[in-house]
Amino acid sequence: MNVRQRAEFLEFARELAERAGASILPQFRQAPAIDNKKAGSGYDPVTEADRAAETVMRDAIRERYPSHGILGEEFGHEPGDGLTWVLDPIDGTRGFVMGLLHWGTLVALFDGESPVVGVIHQPFLGETFSGDGHTAQYRRNDGSRKLRTRRCPRLEDALAGTTAPDLFKTSEETTGFQRIRAKARTVRYGTDCYLYAMLAMGQADLVIESGLKPYDVQALIPVVQGAGGVITDWKGGNPAMGGQVLATGDPELHELALRELGREPTP
Amino acid sequence: MNVRQRAEFLEFARELAERAGASILPQFRQAPAIDNKKAGSGYDPVTEADRAAETVMRDAIRERYPSHGILGEEFGHEPGDGLTWVLDPIDGTRGFVMGLLHWGTLVALFDGESPVVGVIHQPFLGETFSGDGHTAQYRRNDGSRKLRTRRCPRLEDALAGTTAPDLFKTSEETTGFQRIRAKARTVRYGTDCYLYAMLAMGQADLVIESGLKPYDVQALIPVVQGAGGVITDWKGGNPAMGGQVLATGDPELHELALRELGREPTP
Repeated sequence: MNVRQRAEFLEFARELAERAGASILPQFRQAPAIDNKKAGSGYDPVTEADRAAETVMRDAIRERYPSHGILGEEFGHEPGDGLTWVLDPIDGTRGFVMGLLHWGTLVALFDGESPVVGVIHQPFLGETFSGDGHTAQYRRNDGSRKLRTRRCPRLEDALAGTTAPDLFKTSEETTGFQRIRAKARTVRYGTDCYLYAMLAMGQADLVIESGLKPYDVQALIPVVQGAGGVITDWKGGNPAMGGQVLATGDPELHELALRELGREPTP
Repeated sequence: MNVRQRAEFLEFARELAERAGASILPQFRQAPAIDNKKAGSGYDPVTEADRAAETVMRDAIRERYPSHGILGEEFGHEPGDGLTWVLDPIDGTRGFVMGLLHWGTLVALFDGESPVVGVIHQPFLGETFSGDGHTAQYRRNDGSRKLRTRRCPRLEDALAGTTAPDLFKTSEETTGFQRIRAKARTVRYGTDCYLYAMLAMGQADLVIESGLKPYDVQALIPVVQGAGGVITDWKGGNPAMGGQVLATGDPELHELALRELGREPTP
């Protein structure tokens, strides 16, 4: 894929995320509707918001790139010609339903091996984090700037985080997480996609998670890499299919963290 | 204290929080300064932001109400004539230093037994949650509306949260938290003051914490109570001195949660 194509897809990914965000926003902090859900009426406003936003994106993709595939959290996989849009209308649903702020709309374009562009959009804050693996950018209101990770070569200095300690299910996973937690300067919870954005911005140093789906992680990859960070699975491999994910802002820190997770040091 | 006085103090508390927030905001997401901290240079930008904001508030209080006392996180206690301003410039410092969003400036006025007014202000979002124990209000940009908690009489339906599972230190505390966690519909972490604001807004149902300081909790009390919620310690007593804190939007849920925490049911 050439530079011009990549730029065109990235701009379209931002448009998709912003259109989805505009459709989600009126459902944010709508308490009466959430009461309906609890009353067991079968109407779930969050799922409705998720579905409506994914439909907005699917329609726009079909119109603009009818040959592309689509993989979305709500409506599954629609195969295409080798390029696939990977969509998570609301990543961080549990925070969203409580009116909290660490959630976002995720859009990526997957070439069959890696996502080539990715966008994290938080419509309530009007923030958009986007990247193409080479560069990454932050926009809020009328301003925009480059995203760059920061240096942090020691685990003892790392500001780290994960969505919840109960993401780690097996004893191997729990041990791995505990080793990172014991050494890192701090571990913050309740973060979902938003901490990857802060890592790209040079505010945080490490994110460790498990049990992610492809649509939970793909949009994050070109943003983190474009800002100078490293994101892999816990063995150092391709994270695009989700599962166990480790991201750091500093490549040296990534090597150290992989070692804590049991991988032999690179010779 | 009469209604007019209370309204005057509440308006002043909002002014204090907004002035403090304006002084904090330029320090938010300032990565290079945080690198300095890690290099051990002795310059800690977050503590600097905290101190500068508390100084702004202390100066304003001394000018307007010279006989009042002040209790702040950074500069301790300055006794007064029986009314004390209780200040936490940045509640949720760990989230703040990582560029996350669940933090706020807290201001309360304490009459020696209870806080009579309280404000939670999030300057990056421009949100202000305020209350006087009788009513509570939300402001963002030019809009404002009343805050009301929602009904949720069953623990099984409750959207709950706490800042981190490691707030609970003793085995009694851990057991109490685990009992709530096992029954609640969901428990979200990484929330600090912000989840109390969402409880007041009718978005969340229960917050359980421990190890809070008076300046961590006082501002929350008049907001939660003013919105129709209940906030006490884990025995059902006055929460103004901090320690173990339990807040719910629905008073029925509060009784149930206290029982899970080991208190005998009210006859």
